This record gives sequence, C-alpha cells and structure tokens, in this order.
Amino acid sequence: MVFEGSEKIIELGVQPGSPSLRRLSYAFWQTLVASAGAEIISTVRNESCDAYLLSESSLFVWDGRIRMLTCGATQLSNALVLFIEKLGAETIAYATYQRKNEYLLQPQIRSFAQDLAYITQTISGKGYRIGHLDSHHHYLFTANNEGHSGKALATTKPVVTIKPLATTELLMYHLRGPLAEYFRSPCQTAEGICDALELSSLFSGFEFDYHLFSPLGYSLNGIKGDKYFTVHITPQEQSSYCSFETNLTDKDLPAELIEHFLLKLQPERWDLICVDRPLLVTKRRDNTSINTCSITTDAGYDVHFKHVHQQGELQFTQII
Amino acid sequence: MVFEGSEKIIELGVQPGSPSLRRLSYAFWQTLVASAGAEIISTVRNESCDAYLLSESSLFVWDGRIRMLTCGATQLSNALVLFIEKLGAETIAYATYQRKNEYLLQPQIRSFAQDLAYITQTISGKGYRIGHLDSHHHYLFTANNEGHSGKALATTKPVVTIKPLATTELLMYHLRGPLAEYFRSPCQTAEGICDALELSSLFSGFEFDYHLFSPLGYSLNGIKGDKYFTVHITPQEQSSYCSFETNLTDKDLPAELIEHFLLKLQPERWDLICVDRPLLVTKRRDNTSINTCSITTDAGYDVHFKHVHQQGELQFTQII
Repeated sequence: MVFEGSEKIIELGVQPGSPSLRRLSYAFWQTLVASAGAEIISTVRNESCDAYLLSESSLFVWDGRIRMLTCGATQLSNALVLFIEKLGAETIAYATYQRKNEYLLQPQIRSFAQDLAYITQTISGKGYRIGHLDSHHHYLFTANNEGHSGKALATTKPVVTIKPLATTELLMYHLRGPLAEYFRSPCQTAEGICDALELSSLFSGFEFDYHLFSPLGYSLNGIKGDKYFTVHITPQEQSSYCSFETNLTDKDLPAELIEHFLLKLQPERWDLICVDRPLLVTKRRDNTSINTCSITTDAGYDVHFKHVHQQGELQFTQII
Repeated sequence: MVFEGSEKIIELGVQPGSPSLRRLSYAFWQTLVASAGAEIISTVRNESCDAYLLSESSLFVWDGRIRMLTCGATQLSNALVLFIEKLGAETIAYATYQRKNEYLLQPQIRSFAQDLAYITQTISGKGYRIGHLDSHHHYLFTANNEGHSGKALATTKPVVTIKPLATTELLMYHLRGPLAEYFRSPCQTAEGICDALELSSLFSGFEFDYHLFSPLGYSLNGIKGDKYFTVHITPQEQSSYCSFETNLTDKDLPAELIEHFLLKLQPERWDLICVDRPLLVTKRRDNTSINTCSITTDAGYDVHFKHVHQQGELQFTQII
C-alpha cells in the first residue's frame, strides 16, 4: 500500500593505514550490495570516491570508508555485518547504522531490535532513538570505539582517530506542487528532473550519475573530490518522498540549499538530520516544528534532529 | 523495547433472529480467545452482557453481538475469521476490525495489509486509514453489508438493520504525574487503582471485574444492563498507555468524563475515536490538536478521530 522510500544508512571506516577500500574488486561490492537485497546499476569514479548507483539507492566508497543507503524492503544490516566479516573486525575504526521508523510492518525484514541483536553478534555497540516515539523518529546504532566484541584486541592497537563523516540529511515526505506532479507523470525524463531541481547549477563541478526507474522513481549520485551528494525520489501518491544528503559543509551547504529543496518539493513533513554539525536553520514561517533534539553517542559524535510539519492541507484518511 | 498497549478491536453482529450468542459454551469463547493468543481470566454477567477479562484485554458478549479487544502481540484477526467460520458467514450482520499503527515492527504478527488479505478470504469488505500516515493513525476494516464473499446469498435475506455499537475510545499515551508513578510502583493494588481513578463513583451501578497483572498492568471491565466500559493500563516507562472505551452515550458520557481521565493520567498524546456519535469536545487550553478527521464507511457509519499533543516536556531521545 505504501512504498517505504526512507533509506536505511550504514557507514563504516577502517583503521588508518589499512589498504584502500577502492582497491577491492567490483565482485566484492556486488556481493555486499546483494547481501542487502539490491544491485549495482552504474558507477562513477573520481580521484577520491567511487559512487555506485543501486537498484535501491546508493553506495559511496572512499579510501578509508564506505557509506551505503538502501530503501524499500532491503536488509542493510546484512551488508554492515558482511563488510565487517570480510574485512576483519580489527580493521574497523567505526560503524554506524541508521533507519527511520517505518510506516508499515514489514514482516519480511528485521525490526531495529532484531537488527541490534544481529549486528552486536559481530560488533559491540549501542542503539539510540532520536525523535519522539509517536512521530517521525530514527534509530541509530553506533559501534563502540573499542571495536568488535568476542576477541581481545592487541594492546598495541593505534589510537583511533578516524571519525564518521559530517553529514546533512534532508528527508522530505508527502511532496506537493507541480514538481511532485511531474515526478508521477509519464512525460518525465531523468534530465528533466535534474533540470527542474536545478542540480547542475547548484552543484557545479560535480560529476553526475542518475537513473529514472520504471514506472516511477529517480536516483542521482554526484561526486566532486571527496564530496558527495545524493538525491532519491519515490513519488508514489500515498507516500511520496525525496531525500537529499551530502557531506558538504559550511559555505558549500548554506541553509538556502535546504530551502531550495523545500520550495521545489513542498513536503508536508520533513526531517533534517545533521551529524557532527549544527542543524541548519531555515527561514520559512509557515512551518510547525514538532520536534528538535540532539544526542551525543558513546562513540563521541553529535546527532541533531528536527522534524517539521508544513501547514496546509494534509491527507488524513485513505481507503485502502 | 516497547510494549504495544494499544488494542486491536473486533466487533461482530449476527442477523436479527439468530440464537443468542450468550448461549454458546464457555469452551467456544475459550477457543475464540485462544485463537488470538489470549486467555480468559475471569467473567462477570448480567441480564444483557457477559464480560470476560482476558490475559490481553477484554471480550464482551451480548445476545446479538460481540466486541473483543486484545493488546500486545496478539493476532485478533484470527478471532474475527474463526467467529465467522464457526457461526457461518450467512449469520453475520456486520463485522469490523480496528488496529492502531504500531510503534515497532513485530515480525511475528500480520501487518494490516496481511490482515486484510486474510480476512477477505472469509468475508468481503474494505480497509480504511484514519489519521495522518506520519502520526498516530488507525486502520479499520468493515465488512460489506452484503455479507460474505464466495457464496451467493438467498434473495429472501432480510434487510440488515443491526448496526455496530456507538462507541467512544479514549487512548492515552505517555502518562505522567503521580498516578502514572503509582501504576509503576510496587505498592499499587487493584483496588487502589480503581479508587485513584474514582471509577466506583463515576460508574455507579456498574458491576466491576478487575485484575492487576504481575509485574505491571491493570484491566477492568464494568457492565450495567447493556452498557459496558473497560479500562486497560500498561504503565511501562517507555510506552505507558491507558485506554478507556464504552458504549455509553449522551448524558451518560459527558465530555467531563473524558477530561477526568486526561487530568488524572496527564498523557503526552491522546487519541479520541467516536463511532456513530460526534467527537466529544474537551475544554483544556494547553493542547495542540494535530489531527481531526472523519470518514463514513461503505457500511454506512461514521468514524470520527482526533489526535492531540499535550504541551510540555516530551521524551524525544532514548538509549536502547
């Protein structure tokens, strides 16, 4: 009835001095992606990053870390565990896993509690909820800096200095207006969506890779040096959704860029998640902020969360 | 991590002229209750109604209808289907099924979509959602008045006049204040809870049956003639919850009675669901009504829904 557009996300970093992850074979990434229930569609590379467009979202690989997003009924915690098993727990500097509360029970995939039980068989860590239980909220797992459970570590282990990326995620739900209509129209094209969102001018110098899914759905990866951004759209009427996330920071990611997406896509509700950077403040007056909160994880980084209602007509009933 | 206190509810009525349901054996009700994953704890009866207190909520049986509520990881759609199978679909005048969006994925039980698929193998009908997808919402199934699918009905079938009960449900989440503390304290007693809620004076003339669960939880059934009310409390810290529902109407159910529960239990959020009667209007000023909506089902009765935030400190993050 409802497509779960919101992505699960994993990010893993390896210890300084480890061989570059970008030297791992294409078959390795195929296997990793398949473990979550997705496939690689296409790839772009530059001097710092390999970006894979997936049948369900994206995978980015840098020398020392990976970040993978998958939507729908994928099981991304499988990929987290497989990555640790393949590389060896002693290689892992950090590991995080994030997922939004789903709209619907999906008996075929693990609950977050089951994810936690599954992941901590391989690496110890802690689970968090951010956001009110009765509204949009996100679950987060972060591995302990001490690394994996079950094996004693050598005391000569270097001090871990590699940290998760500082990221900004803008998750927009229930899109409205002409662009939302266009995403559902038969005349849409991949280039048309890119143009309508003005991505080429906003992200000049980025190399793009995008795909229009049949019958609906759009994914785009953009990379420039070690910076990435990615846009995913699932425009299905009952649960339309667009996500934008990036590791751009500071002057490269002004609040106006967030406002640009909000103005274009007119979401009824949206979440902003900023990791290791402050929440961007948007200026629109016709919003109701339902929920703003922050946590500092045991692994020592801050996560800030805001959930916003846009005023106006909301869709309250549905015949199923 | 979180106990799902909110009840699933079924209600079924039989055709006028059918034998009284109250003549069915105790073993019949045991089997029906067991099919959902619950047990009968105790019973009270009067001239119009048999009220069963269950290990997970309540069952009320009148001559021409039943209403059953079960919480937690029960599978109440099993009981709906079993009741129709045992009685024969041609006997059924109406059937409804209701469930709230759960906090957590529970892979062991059916999703509402799966419930719909399961139920409509036995009786045709339609599913509805009431409330915003991104906030508290409830799913509803109502059988078509035409009765069951699969078999042609005799054209001499009488016009169906029996309708679902006019009910009021007050569902209170995240209880605060001294009474919420008392529900979690080791010194609580069943009588103490009944007294603290002032139920004897509010519902004078009702026969009560109540049970305090170990280590936590409280259920109460009250009956007087064909009127019932029931209170269920699951006070667990992360997801405390109390429900009150009744078929009292008009002057017997003033808005002050709803306010009484809200003042006593100080819920952070609450839902009010009124079937075939208008939403009661409460006077408190410090509320934010997030959502008010109504639907008229194909079966021809109105369902009104209100979801309310109470202002004040809300619990936004949690370590799991």
